[in-house]
Amino acid sequence: MTDRESLLNISKEASEDDGAIGVISGMPTDETGLLTNNTNSNDNNQTEPIFYVRSRTTAVSRPNYESLDYEVCENALFHDEERKRLQERFSIRKDVIRWIIFIQIGIITALIACTIDIIIEELSEFKYKFLKNAVDNNVPMTDDSDRDLAIPFLYWILLSIVPVSVGAALVTYIEPITAGSGIPQVKSYLNGVQIPRIVRIKTLAVKAAGVITSVVGGLAGGKEGPMIHAGAVVAAGISQGKSTTFVKDFRIFKAFRDDHEKRDFVLGGGAAGVTAAFGAPIGGMLFSLEEAASFWNQNLIWRTLVASIISSFTLNIVLSTYHGLDGFTFTGLFNLGKFDQPLTFEYFELPIFMLLGIAGGLLGATWNFMNTRINKFRKRYIPWKIGKVLEAVLIAMVGVTLASAMMFFISDCRPLGNDPTIHPVQLFCKDNEYNAVAALWFQTPEATVRSLFHDPPGSHQILTLAMFTLIYYVLSCATFGLNVSLGVFIPTALVGAAWGRLVAMLLFYLFPETNFLHPGKYALIGAAANLGGVLRMTISLSVILMETTGVETSFFFPLIIALITAKWVGDSFNEGIYDTQIEVNHVPILPWEPIPQFKGLKARDIMSKPVICIKLQDKAHYIYKVLNGCNHNGFPVVDNVQNNLRSKGRVCGIILRSQLIVILLKSLYVENKRFWVPETSIQTFRDVYPRYPSIESVRQLDNKENYTVDLSMFMNPSPIRVNTHDSVPKIFQTFRALGLRHMLAITNENRIAGIITRRDFIYK
Amino acid sequence: MTDRESLLNISKEASEDDGAIGVISGMPTDETGLLTNNTNSNDNNQTEPIFYVRSRTTAVSRPNYESLDYEVCENALFHDEERKRLQERFSIRKDVIRWIIFIQIGIITALIACTIDIIIEELSEFKYKFLKNAVDNNVPMTDDSDRDLAIPFLYWILLSIVPVSVGAALVTYIEPITAGSGIPQVKSYLNGVQIPRIVRIKTLAVKAAGVITSVVGGLAGGKEGPMIHAGAVVAAGISQGKSTTFVKDFRIFKAFRDDHEKRDFVLGGGAAGVTAAFGAPIGGMLFSLEEAASFWNQNLIWRTLVASIISSFTLNIVLSTYHGLDGFTFTGLFNLGKFDQPLTFEYFELPIFMLLGIAGGLLGATWNFMNTRINKFRKRYIPWKIGKVLEAVLIAMVGVTLASAMMFFISDCRPLGNDPTIHPVQLFCKDNEYNAVAALWFQTPEATVRSLFHDPPGSHQILTLAMFTLIYYVLSCATFGLNVSLGVFIPTALVGAAWGRLVAMLLFYLFPETNFLHPGKYALIGAAANLGGVLRMTISLSVILMETTGVETSFFFPLIIALITAKWVGDSFNEGIYDTQIEVNHVPILPWEPIPQFKGLKARDIMSKPVICIKLQDKAHYIYKVLNGCNHNGFPVVDNVQNNLRSKGRVCGIILRSQLIVILLKSLYVENKRFWVPETSIQTFRDVYPRYPSIESVRQLDNKENYTVDLSMFMNPSPIRVNTHDSVPKIFQTFRALGLRHMLAITNENRIAGIITRRDFIYK
Repeated sequence: MTDRESLLNISKEASEDDGAIGVISGMPTDETGLLTNNTNSNDNNQTEPIFYVRSRTTAVSRPNYESLDYEVCENALFHDEERKRLQERFSIRKDVIRWIIFIQIGIITALIACTIDIIIEELSEFKYKFLKNAVDNNVPMTDDSDRDLAIPFLYWILLSIVPVSVGAALVTYIEPITAGSGIPQVKSYLNGVQIPRIVRIKTLAVKAAGVITSVVGGLAGGKEGPMIHAGAVVAAGISQGKSTTFVKDFRIFKAFRDDHEKRDFVLGGGAAGVTAAFGAPIGGMLFSLEEAASFWNQNLIWRTLVASIISSFTLNIVLSTYHGLDGFTFTGLFNLGKFDQPLTFEYFELPIFMLLGIAGGLLGATWNFMNTRINKFRKRYIPWKIGKVLEAVLIAMVGVTLASAMMFFISDCRPLGNDPTIHPVQLFCKDNEYNAVAALWFQTPEATVRSLFHDPPGSHQILTLAMFTLIYYVLSCATFGLNVSLGVFIPTALVGAAWGRLVAMLLFYLFPETNFLHPGKYALIGAAANLGGVLRMTISLSVILMETTGVETSFFFPLIIALITAKWVGDSFNEGIYDTQIEVNHVPILPWEPIPQFKGLKARDIMSKPVICIKLQDKAHYIYKVLNGCNHNGFPVVDNVQNNLRSKGRVCGIILRSQLIVILLKSLYVENKRFWVPETSIQTFRDVYPRYPSIESVRQLDNKENYTVDLSMFMNPSPIRVNTHDSVPKIFQTFRALGLRHMLAITNENRIAGIITRRDFIYK
Repeated sequence: MTDRESLLNISKEASEDDGAIGVISGMPTDETGLLTNNTNSNDNNQTEPIFYVRSRTTAVSRPNYESLDYEVCENALFHDEERKRLQERFSIRKDVIRWIIFIQIGIITALIACTIDIIIEELSEFKYKFLKNAVDNNVPMTDDSDRDLAIPFLYWILLSIVPVSVGAALVTYIEPITAGSGIPQVKSYLNGVQIPRIVRIKTLAVKAAGVITSVVGGLAGGKEGPMIHAGAVVAAGISQGKSTTFVKDFRIFKAFRDDHEKRDFVLGGGAAGVTAAFGAPIGGMLFSLEEAASFWNQNLIWRTLVASIISSFTLNIVLSTYHGLDGFTFTGLFNLGKFDQPLTFEYFELPIFMLLGIAGGLLGATWNFMNTRINKFRKRYIPWKIGKVLEAVLIAMVGVTLASAMMFFISDCRPLGNDPTIHPVQLFCKDNEYNAVAALWFQTPEATVRSLFHDPPGSHQILTLAMFTLIYYVLSCATFGLNVSLGVFIPTALVGAAWGRLVAMLLFYLFPETNFLHPGKYALIGAAANLGGVLRMTISLSVILMETTGVETSFFFPLIIALITAKWVGDSFNEGIYDTQIEVNHVPILPWEPIPQFKGLKARDIMSKPVICIKLQDKAHYIYKVLNGCNHNGFPVVDNVQNNLRSKGRVCGIILRSQLIVILLKSLYVENKRFWVPETSIQTFRDVYPRYPSIESVRQLDNKENYTVDLSMFMNPSPIRVNTHDSVPKIFQTFRALGLRHMLAITNENRIAGIITRRDFIYK
């Protein structure tokens, strides 16, 4: 009994999503009271606990996410609709429209990505040029004595904190959901968790502004995560043909207004986003499959691929016209720069690559661990909005300070000429020399990755790179989790590239006669290893790196070796950063496989009970009371039972809160059937998707009090049912595979025993 | 009633796999008879129809495939086992072993692939050198008058028909399942259809020998399909730690002896096979995901990838040592030859690529259509084994004859020097010239693809290529479907490359001043288009082509464009060749999405009924009789009911034929419980996997006649149940997603109404 108690105790906390009356086992009186009532049941006994729950659930601290409903509700109306239209022709038409939508998604996502890209490029161009001049004009050109960086330093601080504070403020005050990369949120959404406001146009706008400001501000972050999120928003927006931000309904694509269709589009959008972020169509598709998607099938891949291709095509056209590339020739984007000579490697390097992989795994795991700690600290000690903004500003300032200090103390001068930097900064160096440290810091992180890959051997001192790696490792770790929109891909790659290059330099320092130590190659491997260690993806990362650097396909092999080793090592310590984030935020995401703790548990151990049922024909006032009394979303429908012993009826379907509310709003009662029967269709319910009115919007029923609601045509007549003695791993697989929201646990006599939702699988 | 009748009529035919008594609605007396009996039921009424079915099912012409059982039977024994071992440690150990197995699969598959590769290479080397000499010695070196090819022609015929006849004989007489590429079979297996003898060592041996002989014999086919199959066999073999061909059980990896685990390994093996066939790890993995797999999840990808990587690594080591490549440097394999200069393209070429795509789609669709027709013809008119062998020989001879005719009539002489052929044949050409036609024909198809990609511009006449394309198109179409082990990838690519190159030549002929018409480039695009048109895959094909030719990643784009267009066009006519083959062979494979015909149907419309049930405690003789009486594989278990009205009992589980047989064999009765209880475990049942003894192996029960069997500890207590009024699309999704074998249709009172299996979804 004790464990049952505790289990109940838990499942009650987690019962916002289901039809269970939240009786708290901590209150025996209440529970027993209920059980006794249940025997000679009437409506009252249903109500008390309901109101009890309500006060209770408000007390629950844990953020309560709702589930999406991937199960198609095949009720009578649905079948009417099917019957009405000639199946064949319609489904073809639907297919065509679907393709059109996917293509639109690709194009628009790419356009947004381009805009962000170009703005960032222009602004940072301006910023760093300005800083260069500031340095040139204010620093005495001597490499000894009265060194002084004060003025440029102040300018730099200023040029960092202004955009950063703007970005942080936007995120914090206007749309907090846009903080971070957005990939965890998209992943959760695709897993079936309803993250509020995740796919709104407003979110998109804030995200775009946020990422621009933060990157320009010089925070250690990238723009790829936000772009994936952007793609997802675009997809959701277009596919629904309506916007909830500007209340506008274009009355198109109505057939796609359910969670199931929306999910597929969002996946496509995500893929298009990655593609646009990296100019890597295949990589983009694989990324969203490997990292984001929770449900796959062949057609989905196929559509996603098309979206990515269209996106990359658009991106290429726009960017190559913007850059005026040689006579409009199609060239891959190679965001991370193309390797001039093909990279080759010897067999004996493979062990080195593996060692790099191991290093990447360890560093990555440490990074994830530290980052998680820092974010927990944040959660606890920086609750106030202003504090979050200030924190971002602070981190930005720290970054600038450390960078300046590096420039100030390390004098790493290289002869001009073969310098790969756009604006060579002299700074304490002789004439016709440039400062390698400044070269590293005076550009966007993405550009730095590029130069680490492609700078000729001997562009930096060992000390320079070592310091840079260290600082950036810490900075990026402190940055990810700030209240700004930033991705983690670029900084991770940057750190990896830095220490990869460092390794090459050290090896070369030790064995000067070797010829295979191309520093760029090792930078690439290092980046791969570090990415593998932090993100724990393999195939998509390798393809993305391939596509963004245009290396030979034969170089897949070392990349994969490094990635796999890194993932293996990292996985033995903790999870990838995205999953960690999801876990920290208590998002009830369902893993691919049932967790070992489920072993031996039965459905009855995790289900929430007792359950509020509704009769096939029930009174309006009862439904109204139930809806007001609890905030559950699914109610089992039982066939008519003697003397209102609802919980004793045989289960014949399930009805959703949203449907009930629509029924009350449009007052679809038996008594006034003649008024609404003809025009009421599945469309009536679809129109309010995805923002269903709350029960408050239903005014008192007054005279309709005793009208009857006949659910037979509205309810979902075939909910997924499991037996109370079914094993949890098994029902989990069903739940996961079908993307369910509710699952009814029934007895051998097909009477309701409990209800199982996403949460019941999570908080064990 | 009528449609119910017809539906019943069908579902009876399809009832070998379930527990339905095959009452034929064509026999009203019988049906009514049964229904009346059912009311005052006893064992007899169960038996008659059983025997009736039996005689019936033997009459069914359609090949009756069994399903695999991906559902884990979580019975009492299973839970005992779980409880016995410390979960954590065991599951880790299991993981480690799983990894070891995947790595082994990669290595061994690669080794087998290498062996096949090398043997084919050596033999054809010998063959074509011999032919060259034959030509040189016997043909008068004049390009006019008394042309004579008689002797070389005869040699050629001989060198073709000998190996081909051997290969065809092997396949036909020893292991017919090895005919064709094997991809459709592997695909069906992964979809859950038990294809007999598909993953036996014997099959592997025959397949290997078959593919070597056929390729050496010069048939228009490749070795990639067979290699995938080989990989699958290796995977199945290793993972089970036992071989059924040589009756040997290594008593290892016992924990992996169920269909579920086996499936994942087979997928990995398939991937390793493709990888080994093309030397394309990423492509290999994507291929098996896009084409073969029916169930996906993240871990599966991750393991499959490792298998592919290991495989490609092994392959590279072995082959580079075999070829003695420059000092053991790792080089990608590039089976289809590496493009010396990077391929580029202009925007205005994209429309041309699309047109090529359309052409590929049309040609591919036509090819599939013709091929299907030819195979149907074969099935009908060539039933005898010897006929099949002769047919293969005939096709081989036709091929040789056409080729010789081409050489004879077309004189296409090219100056020696920049010739890319290994053995330039002079044949009717002046000295220091070689014959371009002979160059095309005197090598393996794979080598020809290579030369079509890489030959310098102007290596052939337009006429030569045109004829070659035509002949090879027809030949390959006639070849695929012969009783030999051959894949369709290479010939398809070859045809595509030929007409692609042809297009380039024609365009160049029309616009001589253009500079972008690199023939090799167009050959590549053509190959992509043709492959897309025949196989209907996109992403994996593009990656494979990338990896095998080492083109720039920026060239992904045109490849994908061509592929997508081809697939789109092709799909509007018919299905891909593999799916077509599966369909032609009536393999009950389940599609990704429910078919439109399901719309509006209810479970009761497709389920097979009435059903043979077994009581929780039932008599040995009844079970014995049932097993002898019908050949169903799943029997619902009902709780004990009054006066043997089994079909009226409440469903409490399902028991498989195989389990019942084991119970009878080991005589696990209640009466002699004390003898078997301790040592009997899930292992007892696992040991006989995958080849369960037939009921014939159980001798008469004689004295045990009235012993009781208590199924409660053997049965699967939580079978998937659906309601009779659930809609078919919905239950299909459940069935498909969970990879079920049986699904019980129950009434609202949880009494058995019918049983649903794979077939009930197929033959509608």
